[in-house]
Amino acid sequence: MTRIQYQECIDACIKCMNACNYSYVSSLKEYDLAALRESIRLDRECADICSFAVQAMTRQSPFVVEILRLCAEICERCADESSRHMQTHCQECIDACRSAALACRLISGAVEVYA
Amino acid sequence: MTRIQYQECIDACIKCMNACNYSYVSSLKEYDLAALRESIRLDRECADICSFAVQAMTRQSPFVVEILRLCAEICERCADESSRHMQTHCQECIDACRSAALACRLISGAVEVYA
Amino acid sequence: MTRIQYQECIDACIKCMNACNYSYVSSLKEYDLAALRESIRLDRECADICSFAVQAMTRQSPFVVEILRLCAEICERCADESSRHMQTHCQECIDACRSAALACRLISGAVEVYA
Amino acid sequence: MTRIQYQECIDACIKCMNACNYSYVSSLKEYDLAALRESIRLDRECADICSFAVQAMTRQSPFVVEILRLCAEICERCADESSRHMQTHCQECIDACRSAALACRLISGAVEVYA
Repeated sequence: MTRIQYQECIDACIKCMNACNYSYVSSLKEYDLAALRESIRLDRECADICSFAVQAMTRQSPFVVEILRLCAEICERCADESSRHMQTHCQECIDACRSAALACRLISGAVEVYA
Repeated sequence: MTRIQYQECIDACIKCMNACNYSYVSSLKEYDLAALRESIRLDRECADICSFAVQAMTRQSPFVVEILRLCAEICERCADESSRHMQTHCQECIDACRSAALACRLISGAVEVYA
Repeated sequence: MTRIQYQECIDACIKCMNACNYSYVSSLKEYDLAALRESIRLDRECADICSFAVQAMTRQSPFVVEILRLCAEICERCADESSRHMQTHCQECIDACRSAALACRLISGAVEVYA
Repeated sequence: MTRIQYQECIDACIKCMNACNYSYVSSLKEYDLAALRESIRLDRECADICSFAVQAMTRQSPFVVEILRLCAEICERCADESSRHMQTHCQECIDACRSAALACRLISGAVEVYA
């Protein structure tokens, strides 16, 4: 797979990392912080694996498929958790996580694409 | 500083990480690999600090200024090393590194901007 | 500087990362979570730079001095914040952060050593 | 799983990261650099996932099992590649990679332990 073929997935993962980290810092400023414990934790997990996945794609890692499969799983779990909260930053997180998960699954082969 | 104000620097650092990692894998495929030892090493250094800086900006780290100052320095050293080589991937690296260094210095305050 | 000369600093940074991440997850489980916002944030900052510094030392980065200087600064700030809290995990964090900061400063040259 | 239960695996992954990064920089200094291209690449892959796994264990990531399964796989591939080379640093890498892979598999459940 070439550099160009990863570009959409790289972009989706960067957006997801950005949304997760933004939700992370925003959650830490919320009044009702206690309700967001698990969300804060998963935001960090998701941002970290997205960051790792982006580096792996840009260095054409021989393990891209396995890394993106893991990344998709974590993105999906973070989206699930975010969907339990009403804050705007959580809602933004859901979309970014789902897009990244889909982009990762398209490359790692878990989603069939019919053109 | 808001999320939006970092965006240009985030983009520049991602492009730089991408160019450095591409140059890294490309160098490892070159026939004259030995001449590129130092470049390979600096490509990795630069990709790693750029990745770290991007995460730091997206999580609004209180140490963004210090991290970007370090990032700028490493980008500049990587650009200097890349400029000693004729390969296309090294040339692309120079531009990406210099742009990232400048974007980092603009935020970390080492470059004055007159609008 | 050889591999062996870094060993103490590597160990100190790993202990610090461990203590900070432990304090991070422990804080997120606390009843009085709101008082620990800043501590949670700095724990992550500190764990991330320590992890980065360890990788840099083990790959004999040409930027070890600059990276350790930054690591020391962040460790010290995390120790300061932790010292404002009474939790056991915060107290453990203080010691680990101060030891790591000192080890980093010994290598990065900001502390004179008289044998 | 508690903090203490991860300790052996954390230690094994750190040793592996250290050995891989040492082999990486040592390979880049070798006269016969060209024969080590793939080894250099896998050393970095392995060091990066080990570093990621260590952070994940210390922050008690809910995805530790999945991350360690991936880490084990990459460690094994790096050990295989290292075993094709005679250099001392490659030999040290094999042992460290195999130990880390085993430690990861013990936690991620792919190896049965009979006490």
